[in-house]
Amino acid sequence: MEHKLSTTSDQGEGQPIRCKAAVARKAGEALVIEEIMVAPPMPREVRIRILCTSLCHSDITLWKMQEPPGCFPRILGHEAVGVVESVGKDVTEVTKGDVVIPIFLPDCGECLDCKSTKSNLCTDFPFKISPWMPRHESTRFTDLNGEIIYHFMFVSSFSEYTVVDIANVTKIDPEIPPDRACLLSCGVSTGVGAAWRTAGVEPGSTVAIFGLGSVGLAVAEGARLCGATRIIGVDVIPEKFEIGKKFGLTDFIHALECGNKPVSQVIIEMTNGGADYCFECVGTASLVHEAYASCRKGWGKTIVVGVDKPGAKLSLSSSEVLHDGKSLTGSLYGGLKPKSHVPILLKRYMDKELQLDKFVTHEVEFKDINKAFDLLNNGQCLRCVIWMDK
Amino acid sequence: MEHKLSTTSDQGEGQPIRCKAAVARKAGEALVIEEIMVAPPMPREVRIRILCTSLCHSDITLWKMQEPPGCFPRILGHEAVGVVESVGKDVTEVTKGDVVIPIFLPDCGECLDCKSTKSNLCTDFPFKISPWMPRHESTRFTDLNGEIIYHFMFVSSFSEYTVVDIANVTKIDPEIPPDRACLLSCGVSTGVGAAWRTAGVEPGSTVAIFGLGSVGLAVAEGARLCGATRIIGVDVIPEKFEIGKKFGLTDFIHALECGNKPVSQVIIEMTNGGADYCFECVGTASLVHEAYASCRKGWGKTIVVGVDKPGAKLSLSSSEVLHDGKSLTGSLYGGLKPKSHVPILLKRYMDKELQLDKFVTHEVEFKDINKAFDLLNNGQCLRCVIWMDK
Repeated sequence: MEHKLSTTSDQGEGQPIRCKAAVARKAGEALVIEEIMVAPPMPREVRIRILCTSLCHSDITLWKMQEPPGCFPRILGHEAVGVVESVGKDVTEVTKGDVVIPIFLPDCGECLDCKSTKSNLCTDFPFKISPWMPRHESTRFTDLNGEIIYHFMFVSSFSEYTVVDIANVTKIDPEIPPDRACLLSCGVSTGVGAAWRTAGVEPGSTVAIFGLGSVGLAVAEGARLCGATRIIGVDVIPEKFEIGKKFGLTDFIHALECGNKPVSQVIIEMTNGGADYCFECVGTASLVHEAYASCRKGWGKTIVVGVDKPGAKLSLSSSEVLHDGKSLTGSLYGGLKPKSHVPILLKRYMDKELQLDKFVTHEVEFKDINKAFDLLNNGQCLRCVIWMDK
Repeated sequence: MEHKLSTTSDQGEGQPIRCKAAVARKAGEALVIEEIMVAPPMPREVRIRILCTSLCHSDITLWKMQEPPGCFPRILGHEAVGVVESVGKDVTEVTKGDVVIPIFLPDCGECLDCKSTKSNLCTDFPFKISPWMPRHESTRFTDLNGEIIYHFMFVSSFSEYTVVDIANVTKIDPEIPPDRACLLSCGVSTGVGAAWRTAGVEPGSTVAIFGLGSVGLAVAEGARLCGATRIIGVDVIPEKFEIGKKFGLTDFIHALECGNKPVSQVIIEMTNGGADYCFECVGTASLVHEAYASCRKGWGKTIVVGVDKPGAKLSLSSSEVLHDGKSLTGSLYGGLKPKSHVPILLKRYMDKELQLDKFVTHEVEFKDINKAFDLLNNGQCLRCVIWMDK
């Protein structure tokens, strides 16, 4: 594969790179493809040439967000695959030419959490929607006027080159198609991991998924991989059931057409007591209670996957929590440890167990990145892959 | 041991028994020791001669409660040990003369939940604060005027004789002192089980317990048995720390003397990140959030053990649930399956591993049962055992 690049030949390791990036200059306004300068990596950082990137809902959310954590100008994008161009001091894990997947959730490998099999939340570099790099709180991007451009989710992949901390980089098999591997940077991993790692879905179990976007469908895919035999999707768009069947969905509930019954009652009746695992993938705090109510008494688990607005409260009564034997847990990045679990999922893709192809409904060239925003913003795609070299 | 009984010799199997009971006739008023009639057991029921019984906070709560589920006249009491006097039709599990422990949580052995190792919530006879028997919704008690007297928590042990469904009876080794075994009917089992079964406390872990009543101390005892190395108690009565040390407590936080810090902050600092397991044993919904906040990010578990008023709401934000990798679960009867797990706990008591003796701070004769109410109501005892034959 030949990669057409806008960099000039006198740029190299240790030097800033001049290249194209899609810069979000104002909230909600079309990204501007412009030339920027990408500084060399600082210690324990890696400069990466992006091969392809895909658009996730968090990009849209932060693109629209005027107030912090929204900030501008910023380079969005956090699902991607790239090739290491150069590495900073003290980087031994990857080397120039390695194919890597940047992942927003740090995995430093050294803190108590990263060393534990129970946690995927790095203590040394906690995840946040930061405008900076995680380790050295500064930016590697400037425009041609020397003004700084902010980072996004420690990745900022809507650029031909970006700089990512080594804690946010996982080396992958270069044989894996980058337009499939990039999906594991965020959305698909979040869903598959929520079923596999956070919930621990067991063979034969019943699963209910609230919200059939890419993450909800990825939960279905993860549940299918774990051997769930009944996977119920809940949404307000019936067409999603047809899409969902490709991901293993067995039943569909139209949330607005349940007569006078709450969705939970419908699920309880369908499953003779409730689903073993319920996933809230919409990002609506009030739906968490509906998911909780849809779970089977005695052992049902509710997993919060969707992101609601800051300050949104869950409503659960003390007595239902006490008496129902259910549990509630959150799932950030599907409970996956980036460097341990993403290679496992990629292997399962290569072994034709994990389906990734069906998530990619659209592809565009980098110059047309705003089309991807339109498609996702209008609910017309699952994942749109943006190729940097086309 | 000789048991003095008020029954007359012409009473026997298949006949009503006339005996003494402590009847709660009005909310909050002293129990009245009076003669009552106890009907013979219906099919799958067992009539039991109570040897001893102990007083639990739920007895006090329902004794004071004027509105449903409070109801009068009622025979309270649900922690006890007794001897089977006679059995109804189709009872094969126990026979006359067997020593048994009645347990408020049914374990029918036949429904999906009772057959599953994951649940302790019987589907066929769900637990409720009912005035009736669980299987045949009627009462076995009448006063000498023929007026019915209501049941309590399927046990009603404040009577020389009671009738209990076979689903609520576990046969025990007759060698076990009844004044220790009775503790496992409710409070102590709830606490020990919450640590052992619901939380799954692991060796070396750190535990925080909010509320150091009998249930909270039983959590400490369960955590100690599971190998927890740090057990932090939170209460507003410093004397409870001295008591708590006997149950394995290693640290104490006076909730009203934390300066300007919330308790969760103190726990996070003490434990370098938060406790692995936090237990809310007070029954105050707002404390659940404090317990949740005291848990370690990444894997902390919060277990709701305390019973708040009906309708009390938990307050958790959607984003903390999503981002913190913690889980929340309730624990009814400590997640224990009565017929499988209580014999294990009793064996651990006989093997001198589980401490039960220290929970019994007082003993009274049946005629003095109101003294037990005074002691517990005033916070002057852990468990007061009431002997029927003294």
